[in-house]
Amino acid sequence: MNFNPTARILMGPGPSDAHPRVLRAMAAPLMGHLDPEFVRMMDEVKAMTQQTLLTENHLTFVVSAPGSAGMETCLVNLLEPGDECIICINGVFGGRMADIADRCGATVHKVEVEWGQIIEPADLKKALDKCPAPKLVALVHAETSTGALQPMEEISEMVHDAGALLVVDAVTSYCGVPLKVDEWKIDALYSGTQKCLSAPPGLSPVTFSDAAVKTLENRKTKVQSWFLDLSMVKNYWAGAKRAYHHTAPVSSVYAIHQALSLVLEEGLEKRWARHREVHLYLRGKLENLGFRYLVDEAHRLPNLNSVFLPEGLDEAKLRRQLLDDYNIEVGGGLGAFAGKIWRIGIMGESCTKNHVNMLVGALEELI
Amino acid sequence: MNFNPTARILMGPGPSDAHPRVLRAMAAPLMGHLDPEFVRMMDEVKAMTQQTLLTENHLTFVVSAPGSAGMETCLVNLLEPGDECIICINGVFGGRMADIADRCGATVHKVEVEWGQIIEPADLKKALDKCPAPKLVALVHAETSTGALQPMEEISEMVHDAGALLVVDAVTSYCGVPLKVDEWKIDALYSGTQKCLSAPPGLSPVTFSDAAVKTLENRKTKVQSWFLDLSMVKNYWAGAKRAYHHTAPVSSVYAIHQALSLVLEEGLEKRWARHREVHLYLRGKLENLGFRYLVDEAHRLPNLNSVFLPEGLDEAKLRRQLLDDYNIEVGGGLGAFAGKIWRIGIMGESCTKNHVNMLVGALEELI
Repeated sequence: MNFNPTARILMGPGPSDAHPRVLRAMAAPLMGHLDPEFVRMMDEVKAMTQQTLLTENHLTFVVSAPGSAGMETCLVNLLEPGDECIICINGVFGGRMADIADRCGATVHKVEVEWGQIIEPADLKKALDKCPAPKLVALVHAETSTGALQPMEEISEMVHDAGALLVVDAVTSYCGVPLKVDEWKIDALYSGTQKCLSAPPGLSPVTFSDAAVKTLENRKTKVQSWFLDLSMVKNYWAGAKRAYHHTAPVSSVYAIHQALSLVLEEGLEKRWARHREVHLYLRGKLENLGFRYLVDEAHRLPNLNSVFLPEGLDEAKLRRQLLDDYNIEVGGGLGAFAGKIWRIGIMGESCTKNHVNMLVGALEELI
Repeated sequence: MNFNPTARILMGPGPSDAHPRVLRAMAAPLMGHLDPEFVRMMDEVKAMTQQTLLTENHLTFVVSAPGSAGMETCLVNLLEPGDECIICINGVFGGRMADIADRCGATVHKVEVEWGQIIEPADLKKALDKCPAPKLVALVHAETSTGALQPMEEISEMVHDAGALLVVDAVTSYCGVPLKVDEWKIDALYSGTQKCLSAPPGLSPVTFSDAAVKTLENRKTKVQSWFLDLSMVKNYWAGAKRAYHHTAPVSSVYAIHQALSLVLEEGLEKRWARHREVHLYLRGKLENLGFRYLVDEAHRLPNLNSVFLPEGLDEAKLRRQLLDDYNIEVGGGLGAFAGKIWRIGIMGESCTKNHVNMLVGALEELI
């Protein structure tokens, strides 16, 4: 049975278009996951992940599963039953973190704000008044369900003043907007590959600070997930002798190696600027068509544009027409915003003025 | 930075060589994981997984992570804190199941036999005498660490007579030796893609019987892993409306689709016969060279040949020479057998007389 996928233009919340070099990398013959040549390549992946995350964290690696597993990796390794934590929720993914923390047996204190808003320092302060010494505070840098971009520095200071670890979801911000792990003192961070990195989905870059590693080492109980237990995984990614833990997804690692190379060839700051520039180009055209942004301009993620449609349009029908007639994918809303907004991604290889013009041209025809 | 992997001949415990059609499939452009065209393709993957597992189980799907995550999926969904279970251990992977079951908070009764042996019905009977009504009994069909092939039918009857669910690791048997999920009344089974299926590592085919699904539905507690929680995952793979859970590894699903197609084109029974035939061909040549099998002939896995080397050879040095001078990968021993045995895989695309001749020819030079 053959499957010859239609060539789509991917402008949803991910996956975004992959560079031909990334796709070609996956067609290379397989190697053993303990082959010395493969291990050297993993070292390069680690080094490039550190460079793109702006961190020197020794425990920087790639989880062999998608971003949600990266989220779970950070939380299950740091939380133990009875621990107290604060989880900030301003969309789907903050809610998912709270669900996972609860499954770890932790007492979860939620900071909840309206979807589309950011977490203000005052919101966190209220939570810290009730729970002054949490083990960790988790929040989402770029909320993929709303397109809100969270300022990190003031929050980070408050978290560390409380003696807590700062855990950050950077799935949709990584390689698209400024993200500075060491400067912002982030202790545990996970991302995905299929957003601004423009690799296929399936892996999750993760980094742990020394303080987070220490917390891991001081656990009293076993990590509840064997597959995600970093006390073992780290021996494969960072041990002197690469101890077998599980079989790494060889072809996907080839792909992320190539995608990271492309980011560094372009340069991180240029890449951030490109996302900003194409966002402004898209924004003008969308507003002309009557689309209205969900998130205030000050906290708007440039690479994921969450917009209300002009009055009277059937969003599902229009989205299907874009896909069927133009092969363009945009995303619908999630949760409270299902049926109400679109999420238009301009991420990585999908972040070009050509993409914007294809989308806007099609919309001008269809509306 | 480029990575151009050396073309290896993969004859270890996996990954095995992938067919060019499988590699090419991954180079196809990405699609959205909710694209109707991708969803139709997932339906085909599901149908082909059912066909190759010889099951009609409705809940048959592919975990978005390697075999170890498939193992964890089966156990965390079926076990709750306080449950009693019996885990049979005759190698690394039975031990791993016991570790995971323990992390689920279950009381684990171990049946332990010498590595390289199979689990005899009498061994299980002793455990059932001590724990007459376990929630599940888990064992390994093909122990990748030793090359032992476990007979299933009598064990299955005993497990069901005890009212328990039968959980099976079929990572290394799937698509290489007879494996009959419905006929053998297996309730939960996981496999891998990088063995006899000859796809890249990174996914885990899993199937749950109706009884296992009922156990899942009757849980009193949440599944401890969010990422592997089948009460949610099944809505993406089998729900009427494909609800978003996590982003599927699109390119890896392309690959398994193509690999499954190749299995069905060849025919399951012919594929089993091919593994048997090439095994006999290899066996004769290995024994001529002085290699000695670890496992008794009656319970020997044809596709993974665990052998002691002829006296006086440095296994690590010889293995490295094979890799460096001939680009041939064979596997070393795990755990108790590290430094003592080789594991020679003839799986999927690596299961040809040409592969055997390359290996044996190289060994004749090197020894």
